[in-house]
This record gives sequence, C-alpha cells and structure tokens, in this order.
Amino acid sequence: MMDYSQGQGELANWIVSETAFSADTLGKGEAVMVLGNGYIGLRSAAEEPYIKEKRNLFINGTFNKSQKNEVTELPNLADVTQLDIRIDGERFSLEFGETKNYIRQLNLKTAELTRMFEWVSPKGKGVRFHFKRFVSLDNLHLIGMKMEIESLTDPIDVSVESGINAQVTNSGAQHFLEGERRIAENRFIQLVQTTNESSIDVVLNTVHNIIINGEKVTAHADKDMDRRKVWLTHDFSLRRGDKLEMEKLTTVHTSRDGNASAEGCDLQGFREQSLKELRQRADEGYDALFLSHKQAWQEKVWDACNIKIESDSGFDQLALRFALYQLTAMAPAHDDRMGIGAKALSGEGYKGHSFWDTEIFILPFFIYSNPAAARSLLTYRYRGLPGARQKAADNGYAGAMYPWEMAWPSDGEVTPVWGDIDIVTGDQTKIWSGFIEQHISADIAFAVYQYENITGDRDFMEHCGYEMVFSTADFWASRLEWHSDRRTYMITDVIGPDEYKEHVSNNAYTNYMAYFNMKLAVRYYEKLKDENPELLRKFEVDNAYREWRAKADLLYLPQPRKEDYVIPQDDTYLQLPDIDLTKYKNQTKVRTIYRNYNAEQINGFQVTKQADTLLLFYLLGQTFLQDDERLSEAVKRANFNYYEPRTLHDSSLSLATHVIIANDLGEKELAYSLFRKACEVDLGPQMDTSDDGVHAASIGGIWKAAVFGFAGVRLADGVLRINPRLPKHWHRMQFSIFWQGQALAIEITQKALKVTASDNRSVIIETGGMTYEMEDTMEVQFREIRPHSSSTVR
Amino acid sequence: MMDYSQGQGELANWIVSETAFSADTLGKGEAVMVLGNGYIGLRSAAEEPYIKEKRNLFINGTFNKSQKNEVTELPNLADVTQLDIRIDGERFSLEFGETKNYIRQLNLKTAELTRMFEWVSPKGKGVRFHFKRFVSLDNLHLIGMKMEIESLTDPIDVSVESGINAQVTNSGAQHFLEGERRIAENRFIQLVQTTNESSIDVVLNTVHNIIINGEKVTAHADKDMDRRKVWLTHDFSLRRGDKLEMEKLTTVHTSRDGNASAEGCDLQGFREQSLKELRQRADEGYDALFLSHKQAWQEKVWDACNIKIESDSGFDQLALRFALYQLTAMAPAHDDRMGIGAKALSGEGYKGHSFWDTEIFILPFFIYSNPAAARSLLTYRYRGLPGARQKAADNGYAGAMYPWEMAWPSDGEVTPVWGDIDIVTGDQTKIWSGFIEQHISADIAFAVYQYENITGDRDFMEHCGYEMVFSTADFWASRLEWHSDRRTYMITDVIGPDEYKEHVSNNAYTNYMAYFNMKLAVRYYEKLKDENPELLRKFEVDNAYREWRAKADLLYLPQPRKEDYVIPQDDTYLQLPDIDLTKYKNQTKVRTIYRNYNAEQINGFQVTKQADTLLLFYLLGQTFLQDDERLSEAVKRANFNYYEPRTLHDSSLSLATHVIIANDLGEKELAYSLFRKACEVDLGPQMDTSDDGVHAASIGGIWKAAVFGFAGVRLADGVLRINPRLPKHWHRMQFSIFWQGQALAIEITQKALKVTASDNRSVIIETGGMTYEMEDTMEVQFREIRPHSSSTVR
Repeated sequence: MMDYSQGQGELANWIVSETAFSADTLGKGEAVMVLGNGYIGLRSAAEEPYIKEKRNLFINGTFNKSQKNEVTELPNLADVTQLDIRIDGERFSLEFGETKNYIRQLNLKTAELTRMFEWVSPKGKGVRFHFKRFVSLDNLHLIGMKMEIESLTDPIDVSVESGINAQVTNSGAQHFLEGERRIAENRFIQLVQTTNESSIDVVLNTVHNIIINGEKVTAHADKDMDRRKVWLTHDFSLRRGDKLEMEKLTTVHTSRDGNASAEGCDLQGFREQSLKELRQRADEGYDALFLSHKQAWQEKVWDACNIKIESDSGFDQLALRFALYQLTAMAPAHDDRMGIGAKALSGEGYKGHSFWDTEIFILPFFIYSNPAAARSLLTYRYRGLPGARQKAADNGYAGAMYPWEMAWPSDGEVTPVWGDIDIVTGDQTKIWSGFIEQHISADIAFAVYQYENITGDRDFMEHCGYEMVFSTADFWASRLEWHSDRRTYMITDVIGPDEYKEHVSNNAYTNYMAYFNMKLAVRYYEKLKDENPELLRKFEVDNAYREWRAKADLLYLPQPRKEDYVIPQDDTYLQLPDIDLTKYKNQTKVRTIYRNYNAEQINGFQVTKQADTLLLFYLLGQTFLQDDERLSEAVKRANFNYYEPRTLHDSSLSLATHVIIANDLGEKELAYSLFRKACEVDLGPQMDTSDDGVHAASIGGIWKAAVFGFAGVRLADGVLRINPRLPKHWHRMQFSIFWQGQALAIEITQKALKVTASDNRSVIIETGGMTYEMEDTMEVQFREIRPHSSSTVR
Repeated sequence: MMDYSQGQGELANWIVSETAFSADTLGKGEAVMVLGNGYIGLRSAAEEPYIKEKRNLFINGTFNKSQKNEVTELPNLADVTQLDIRIDGERFSLEFGETKNYIRQLNLKTAELTRMFEWVSPKGKGVRFHFKRFVSLDNLHLIGMKMEIESLTDPIDVSVESGINAQVTNSGAQHFLEGERRIAENRFIQLVQTTNESSIDVVLNTVHNIIINGEKVTAHADKDMDRRKVWLTHDFSLRRGDKLEMEKLTTVHTSRDGNASAEGCDLQGFREQSLKELRQRADEGYDALFLSHKQAWQEKVWDACNIKIESDSGFDQLALRFALYQLTAMAPAHDDRMGIGAKALSGEGYKGHSFWDTEIFILPFFIYSNPAAARSLLTYRYRGLPGARQKAADNGYAGAMYPWEMAWPSDGEVTPVWGDIDIVTGDQTKIWSGFIEQHISADIAFAVYQYENITGDRDFMEHCGYEMVFSTADFWASRLEWHSDRRTYMITDVIGPDEYKEHVSNNAYTNYMAYFNMKLAVRYYEKLKDENPELLRKFEVDNAYREWRAKADLLYLPQPRKEDYVIPQDDTYLQLPDIDLTKYKNQTKVRTIYRNYNAEQINGFQVTKQADTLLLFYLLGQTFLQDDERLSEAVKRANFNYYEPRTLHDSSLSLATHVIIANDLGEKELAYSLFRKACEVDLGPQMDTSDDGVHAASIGGIWKAAVFGFAGVRLADGVLRINPRLPKHWHRMQFSIFWQGQALAIEITQKALKVTASDNRSVIIETGGMTYEMEDTMEVQFREIRPHSSSTVR
C-alpha cells in the first residue's frame, strides 16, 4: 500500500512510501520507486526474490535485437540486486514469518531507497533489517547498496548469497552472449556480457564491504559459478544485538559509453580499468559515495529546477517533486545518441523505444528547465534522420518520415507488428502504428520550433533544426494525396493520436500538424533567405520551398462544423454511433473497453482513446497559427465539450492536455480533478498500473499541467505568455524556467504574478491580455481571471 | 523428504514418495519423479510456482545452439505445467498457510505422478487438493494433468491462470524465436515456437476440461496474451463440499518428429492437424487417456523386462523398478536419430549431450532387454560417423574420432570449453575432455562388439557395426605415437575415465581399449574375409587391416607391476604423493575435494575420480581378451585393493563397476554396500544430488550391478556366463534377458539357478565353471561359491 504523507518536517512531501508489503502488487513499488541517473535505470525489486518480481537493470541506449524476428529493445542486464538471505537456515521472505513496522521509502530529495522492518522467521528468530540503495547521480556508473541485519532475540546464523546473475531476460528474450566471469582477489566479482546482435560489451563489477558492529572486517566467502552467474556466499554468526552491515558496490560500464569508443580500449583493458575503479570506490564505502550522490541531486536538480507549491494538499507538491525526480532519472543528459523510452528506464514495456511522447510530453520540461538536456534529446532525433529518410524511401515518400518507435537512430522503424490478444478472434492483434501513425514527423518539427523559440539556440538550428523541419516538410509534401474531384490534398489511411480509430482519413490532428510543419518550413526558408542565405543554399530546398508553400495551402483542413463548431476528428468519426461509455469513463483500470470489444469494433464507435483534436488547440496555440480562427476560444470550448465526454483517457498521455485546455477554459474544478488523475496514473491507489514501468509522458504531463496549466506559462509564437489560474487549493507556486538563456523565477499566488530575471536581461511577457517588458522583476496583481486566448496588446 | 516404503499390498515397492514439502530442496523430487516416454521429458515441478523451481520440458533430439558462442543443447520448451491458483484472492503456495497430510507419489508401475494434501490459507480457508499427471507412453505427444479442488470449510472463490508460457529459458539461454499464439474457440490454446538456430518448429496445444461435482461444464474464461505467453483465467465459486476437477491436456509436436518430415506438411497444416488431434483427446478426457498409458507401461515394460527381488529390503526392489522406469522414460526407442543425455530428459545438466555413459553404462540394459532400442541407440552413433570423421580430420587423424559429447550426429564435438570456478584463481576452469578424453571411440567399438555377441544381429553389423569398428580402429592407428627409443607406440596427453588426471600419458584404460578396438577390427576383417568377402571389399580396408595388426601388437600396454600386480593407471600416477582421503571417502556430497583443491592440484595426488583401470577387468573380461593374463583374477584383486581406497566415486558412473568387481572377487558385503550407494545417487537422502537431473549412467548401473553383479550374467566372448552370487539379504531374483533373439527367464536363489528359454532354442550357458547346453529349462544347484573368472570347461 502506497502512502505519500510519511515525510515529516523538512522531508514533508519528499517521501514516497510503501507501508505494507504485498507480494501480489510488486510492480507498483518496483517502477514508481525506480532509481536512475539517465545512464542507469534500476527497477526497485526487493533484495530477496519473489515469484512476481521484475528485476530490471537497464543502461540507456544499449539497444539489441535478441532474435531475428523481434524488434530491437533495451536489454535487461545481469542482476546485482538479488540477495538470497537465510536466517538460521530458513529462507528470508516477507511472504511468510511475521513482519512488523514495515516501511519502504523513496526519498525524492536524496534519491535513496530504504526499506526497514523487523521480521520473525517461521522458527521464531527475530531480526531487524535495514536496506538502502542508490544509483549515483555523481558517478553515473555506480550502484550502491547496503544491508544492515541485527539479531533481536537469539544468536542467529546468517547466510547471504550475493553476486551477479546474467540468467535474467526481457520476459524470456535473452539479449546477451554468455560472457566470462571471475572473482578476483577472492572479492571482486566481474561478469562480462555482450549483446548478441549489436555487439555491445557490458562489464559489471561488484564488491562487498563487511562491517560487524562498526568494524570493517575481512570475511571469508565461498565462491561459486553457474551458467551466466557468479556469486559469493557469506556466512555469519550474530549474537543478540550484533549488527552486521553488508555493503554491495557495483559499477557498470559498456562499450557504448561516450568515453569507451573515444578511448578505443579493448575489452581486456576495459575490464581491468573498471575493476581498478571499483577498488577505489570500495575503499570509499557506501556512506561517502552516497554523500556525493546526494549533493549532485541538490545541485543539479533541486537548486536548478524545483517547483514549490503551498497547497491544502501536500500530495500535489509531492507529485511535482516525483515528476522532477523521474524526469531526472530517465533523461540521458550525458549522451545525445539516445532518447527516452515510453516507460523510461523503469520497465520492459515498449522496449525502451522513443515515441512522440518525448517531444510533446517530456521535452517541454527540459526546454524550460534544462535546455542542454533538451538539445541532447533533439539531437538524438537529428541523428535519426537517416533512419527516417530510409523509412520514407521504403514507403515511397520523400524526406524524413520519422519512425513511430525509434531505438538506434540509424534503424528507422522498430514498432513491433503483433500485440495483445483480440478477444473476439483469439488471435494476436496487428499493431498498425508503425505503418500509418504518421503525425510524429510533424510533432518533432513542432518540438524544434518550440525549442528554438524558447531557447533562441541558433547553433542547434543551424546544425540540426532547420534540416529536421525541411526534411519532415518534404515528407508531408510527398505524402499528400491529390483528390482532383475536391481539388484538395488529403491524407488518407492514418492513425491519429486517438489509436482507437485505425485507417481513418483526414485525421484533423494529422492534417493540421502536417500543415503546420510545411508552413514552418516555409517560414524558416524565408527567414534564412534573409538572415543566412549561404546556409540556406546548402540545404538545396528552393524547389521544395515552392512545393511546401503550394501544397500546404491546398491541404484539406477539417473545418469546425457550422452548427456547433466541432472539428471532425476524421472523415467518419462524427457519423459513427455513440455507445454508453459510463462504465469506461468510471473505470478503475484503463482499457477496460478491450474486455468487451476488439479493436475492429472499437473503431466503429464515437469513442476516443486520448486527446486528439484537442491537442491542436494546445500545440498550435503556441505558434504563428495562434490567431487562426479555426483555433479560436469558441471552437476550443465546443470541441472540449464534445470530445472530453467521449475520451476514455486510455492512454496516460491524454490527461495533461485536458487539464491545460480545461484550465484555459476556466473549468478549474475539472482541471484540478484531471490533474489529480494524471498524478495518479503512477501515484494512485491502483496497484497494477505501473507494472510495465512508469508512464514517462504522463510524468512529463504532471509538470506540463502545473506549469502550462495552472501557472499558465505558454509560448506564444516567440513571446512568453503567463496567465496563471491556480487551483483554489493552491496558495502559492514558485518555480524557475529558462527563457532565452536566462532563468526566470516565477512566483504565483491567487492574487499576483511575480517574475524575477536572473541576468537582468530584458524579457517581454504577456499576462492578463497586456504586454510587459521587464528587466529585473515584475509583479502583476490579477484583477480578474481571463481566458488565456484573449487577444493581447503589443 | 523422500520415502520409498509407502507402497502397500500390490503397490509395495512401486511407489517413490515425498512425504513432506520443502521449497529448499525442490530439485530432488523434480528430477527423481520426472515423467517421460523417450520423446517427451517433463521435469516434475509443482503446479504452483516456487523461487528455486526448475520447470523443464524437453523433446528428445531437438538440439539448438542458442548463441553463437555456446554449444548446442536440448532446449527447454514452453511450460504447460504451471497453474497460478488463488483461493479467495490469496496465492496458493505451500510456503505459507498450513499444509496437512502432504504426500507426493510417483507410481513406477503406472508412471503417474500424484500429489495430495489439505491446505489452510493464511486467511483460514480449508481446501483439499489432488493433482495428477502423466506423460503418455501410449501417445508419445500427450501430457495429461488433472487438478481436483474441494472446499473443506467455507464457500471459496478459486481462480486459476493456466496456459502456455514460453518465457522460460535454459538457465538464461533462450532457444526459441517468439512464435504465434492463439486461443481457438475460446478454449484451445496454441503456441508455436521455433529454435533460433536449428529451425525446429514446435507446436504446443492445450485444452482444459472443467468438471464440477462430476458434471462436465462449459466455463467462461478470460483470455490473455503477453510476450511469449498465452493463458486463460478461470474463476469458480465453490460451496463447502463442492468438487472442482480441472483437466489440462496438452500435446507437443515438432518438425523433427519422424512423421513430420515424412509428411512434409507446412507449419500451418501442422498447426491445424495438431489442434484437430487435441480436440479428439479433449473428448476422451484424462481418465481414458491415462488408462491407455497405464496399459502401455504394463505391456511394454513390466511384462517385458521386469526384475523381481525377494529381499529383506524392499528398497532394493524399488530401486530396480526405479531404474527400469527411468530407462524407459529416457530412451528414444522411437527414433534412431537421437541418443540419451547424461541427465536423461530430467534436467538441463550436460545439455542433453550423449557421453560414453550410453555405451558403457546404459546400453547393456537395452541390449539384454530391448534389443531394438539398443540397435536404435547404436544407429545414432553410426549416424555420428561423419561428425566423428570430421573431428579426426580437424585433429590431424584418420578414421572416426567420436566426440566426447555428441548432440546432432553431424556436428561432431560439442563439449563446452569452460566450466565451473577454479577456487584458487577465481577464473573459470577449462574443460579438456572435448580435446583429449579419447577413449570414447573404443568404448563405442566395445558396445558394437557386445551388441553383436548378445543379439547376433548381422543386419546391424553389415549396415553399421563393421564400419564403426573399422573407422574407430583407423582413428587409433593414426593416433598412436611411435617412440623409437622404446620401440613402442604410446598414447600421450589424454584424459582417461579418471578425469582427476588431465594430460596424462599411457592411461591404461585408454591404451588397452585402443588395443582391443584394433584387435576387434582385425578379427572382424578376418571373419568377413571368410564369410562375406564382397562386403569386406566395399570397406576398402586391406591396407588398414595390416596397419591395425602391426600397430596393435606394438602398442605399449602398462603391465602389472611385478611386486604387487598393480597396473599403473598412467605413466605418472603411481609416483604421485598420496594424501589423506578420509574426509572425501566419507563425504556426503560428491566433489567435496574441489572445495579444497583446484583441478591442477588434484592432478598431483594419487586420487581417482571414478573407476578407471578397474573397468578393463569388467569390459575386456567379456571379450576375446578374457584369458589375457594381465587381466587375471590375481591382477584384478590387486588392482581393486589398490584403486578402490583411492577412488572417490565423484562420478556417478563409478559405483556400478566397483560393485561388479567386488562381487566377482567375493567381497559380497562391500559389493552390496556399494550397490546401495549406487541406488542412493538419485534415491538417497541427500536432497541436492539430482538438481541438474537424474544420473542416467548411474541408473543403468543399478541394473548392471544387479544383473552383471549379483546375478553374475556376463558375456564371455560369445558365450553366456551366469555365475550368481546374491547378497545375503536377497532370497530370490527373477528377470528376463534376451540372448540371441530368444528371451531367457532367469530365476536365482541362494541355492540354485534356473533358466527357461522362451523359444526352446538351444543355448550354451557357462555356470560354476561348467558349460551346459540347454533347450527348454535348466536348473543348477550351487555347491560352492566360486569366483566368476575361474577357467571354464568347454
């Protein structure tokens, strides 16, 4: 059972707790309490094994294709966390014996996971356990673990098997060749594994420090090896009151590490070097290593991009900290050759692949909070251009058609073709997204636009951004289909964001975003023609420019219906029958509808999986299309009123958008309740929602809902607009964003907005329909609440 | 805890029981109670999962190489045995709650595994469980399971997840591509898997029959799929006294099945056909299918090759039945393209590879009991000639050098190169057997000789046998090294049967067996020259014949020392220091010595892993070399007295040979105690000896120890010799053997030997130093006990 209110005093709203153990719902704690540093992701399985555990260790970017008929995925490395503990010969497990005072906690501030309890074995031996664990933000290769055992009653014998176990798989898929194992100096355990297709070498080293009653001791241990496995068995005899501390310090290095290829050292050298490093870490010990890690979190995260909320509900504050924690743990800020998977580094779900989730739901946090990391993530997409071009060519198109799921930048499309069961036929369901969910190319172009506008990073644009926008525009230009009877271009047979509608034509989201993508290319072309014609010539897009311009204006954009302003989600949606959705709108588990209907049937109802058309108002409202009357306040309200009741939020991506739009429309209560739902995707009482991993986009969405929703921060075609509308429970909200390279400290209350610029550089800010130019600090008292989209004074 | 005395009345000494459950020692019951029919091997893991379980399903001969740097092995197929059971929402497991009246039994007579107990859940719900399982000997593709659940107290909800799970591996090595899954007609679950290197398709189908209070019902079930997994969830509500029966019937077919390639049907056809077959089986139901299976065991096994013992100890009778049970379960009598693995089909140990274990320890049972199966096993070796020739060529030799470990006949050597930890260096130990343990080629030649002499099967000799003997003789002729200083051929740098001595020269066993092999080739040549010169010409071995003859006579054969008749095991053994072996001779776990010394150190002591030199007396005593004075009674005794104290029996192959020799020498007490030890390799109180699987050669050795040892049956160069010497605890022993195509019923008491021939064909039998010719029945009263090897009157 989860509890978010255990933190007291200084730690209030910093602690995610699990106050009772249940072997039936392990996935929740494992994923929600995942540890990571963007390089390593370590799922928080308990030390002692359980039947339903998922023991995952991922290193970002180490993609591999296990078998020829599978897609590449992020492999599950050898496990170092499992400890097989025996107390007087009895296996230690919380599934039997008696457990008292159980508490497991993730401290978001220090990114340390702890677990404490007393356990009475079936034979009646009382023992106090205290486990600690962190994945260092100071040394990306380091995992620290510590176990304390104290005998509470009788003298006890304690036996601990601990080592490195490469028998693990990704749900049965083995990614690694069996590699060499050794135990150096009776103490340093090393295991090498190499991915079987991408040939990435992984070297794991681990060492134990044994401390008894505060004294570091040299303990004898039995040495063992099995297939893909090497371990030590330590045996101890503890008297009543004796305290055993066992530290386990592990390092992981791979031949894909940034410096590995640079240094070009061979595997043997690599093994020796990593062992040497661990020897040093072993001497430092858990506590010293943890201190450096904790300082890194303070400096890199909490001093840099904290959000503080004064609220009636401490949970809101905790959820925002949780979002910042997770976003830090998942982001490969150290390496621009890798992205963020849909389940971050916390589970095997979606195989570590990057979706539009990154650009539309996660990237905004980094653009506003850590522009360097944002650039790194966008550079990953730039590196993906060859794969995207290949996908376009394979499909008979020009330009760059980004893969729906991306892993190795050069690989292009890696979406699997077959999915879950079709409950009607009993066969596997075909996954069409990799073939026809095409909006992602425009989503990436939007992200480039957003990044450029907020950061002003010209260097990125010149080296990557323009090319990405031009290439995706090229794709759309070739993708459009001319319908001479209607004298218009159309986009048929696609899936929009609403994946409950497959093989639709003229999905509004797709068409509008394609239009935006081409129009953006036109603008960039024209801008470069003025500002940097030399660079423009290199792109050789003169003909393309004419094509973008001509075709964009002839692209069919579904219009708001005259009678009710509803924009048809696609050519057929509004003609489909409605069904009673009450059951699904009130569902406690997502995708309940699949228990009653298969994909083909769901395709035939007016039911929407997730924000689709509504996204246009949020996204394009930030662009040069903001004043398009098809995106006006009235149209937005009409569409929200139409689509919200038909949207099941069966994708975790959905809620944040609805929060933002609801807030924009003044639907404060609804906005806040949707925000809580968004927080509860991972932090809610449902214990099985995060089994496959946390919902990275939803977590990005928590931040978005707070900053873009309640704080009303919004890009408006190059201008910063801030129209706060705090929930009534919130009294104060403080956070920082980066705007054009300068940090702006923003403080919002129910009555006023205060902005303080770090560098005293002039900033234009729109708020309450007025435009202000500020240098140092500005403070605005709200007179009344106005919709954001009211026209502004320039 | 194992108990072998639970069978009562008609079932006395037929029942292997486990009377208490322990999650710490699952391997014992899983392996010892394995179910099989020579095609399927199904390790007996419990239905409900446990942390330390090994859930194995093997199909003989479906070898695959999981990764490029591993050797081929027998892959672990998808699991069908696991049932995830919940009682009122609580997971069912014997690790918690309260278990009463637990008993698990393997009925050797009917080859059915049953498990019964009452369980009170932690919440206090009382339930009676009764599980049954068999692997059909009537239909090789069929696995039958049945579960009965009865509520003893309150009404309860029962939930059962059951399906096919291909997430399993061989200790981390995944052999299969992810395959298609489906659930046809809401009921028939099908999963396809294909080995990733050898491209063998496997189709598993499973179906459930639900019977409530005796009525077959149509039950709704939820359908689910995950990666490599497909299953149904059934939910039931039982009132007090209600009885739920759930049958699960599974079929397995592979594209390597004998008829599969013959019919040449495609995978799709294969899938439809196997599903159709299961539809019929589903209608028959567990009980009817079990009846056909039980009848097959009676007819094919117990009516054909039973051994009956009247003894003070029922355990001896049970152990012999256990041996026959296991030998039947492991032998691929249906297909001569496959062999028997060192752990049979009961575990992942030794990867399903065939060693000399088959020819020297297992084959004798089949030669005497089921000559067709023996021929099938030898044909597998005949099919291995191309691989053996390749190995010879790769090593610069002529002829056929059989691989130390064999899987696919064409592959040649498949011994892995790296093994367990070297406790001194901490690195992996190199396994040298695949390079230099070469006696197997002569062992196979011996097996051909033995098979020919006992069966008189000329057809086999002409199609396979002669070529095998000539080709292995060719190998030895090329293998011998001429030492001109000593004017002799030697064989240096080998491993003999005693694997504790690596890189030795002139291992007595190897040299004598090579000598035998070449001499045998000479004899066959000369015989064929007389009897079938046309066939002989086809072999083109005239030059080879001269070489065999010349070289054999110049091969150095270590002579008994003049002073004590001890034959040096190799050139250096007798010069090595002795160490105190008391600790290891009294060990409860084999290979304890490795806890103190590494391979290099053990190489330097007079310590022997297993019967080595002593094997010569047993093997060559059956051949035309029986009268060689180097193998005389006195030499045999001297060598037994020297080597027995130095032999740790750290290989399960060792004991049977020592039983036979001890019995030959009149050491009846020692022989009997070694026999009990041999039975206890798998059936003993040590609970972890069989974790990797049962010891196939040791099981063959139980039969050998009884029939060759106590009953004194022995081939003597074409003649049947029977010199019984029953242990004093044994009052009567009855069994049948095949001799020259005729069944001989043999009955032995402490006082007399009676032989009855089934076909009234004349048989020559030597016993008590006399030679008898019998047609119908003969009965001989023993006057006194004589050593077997005394000279006989012809």
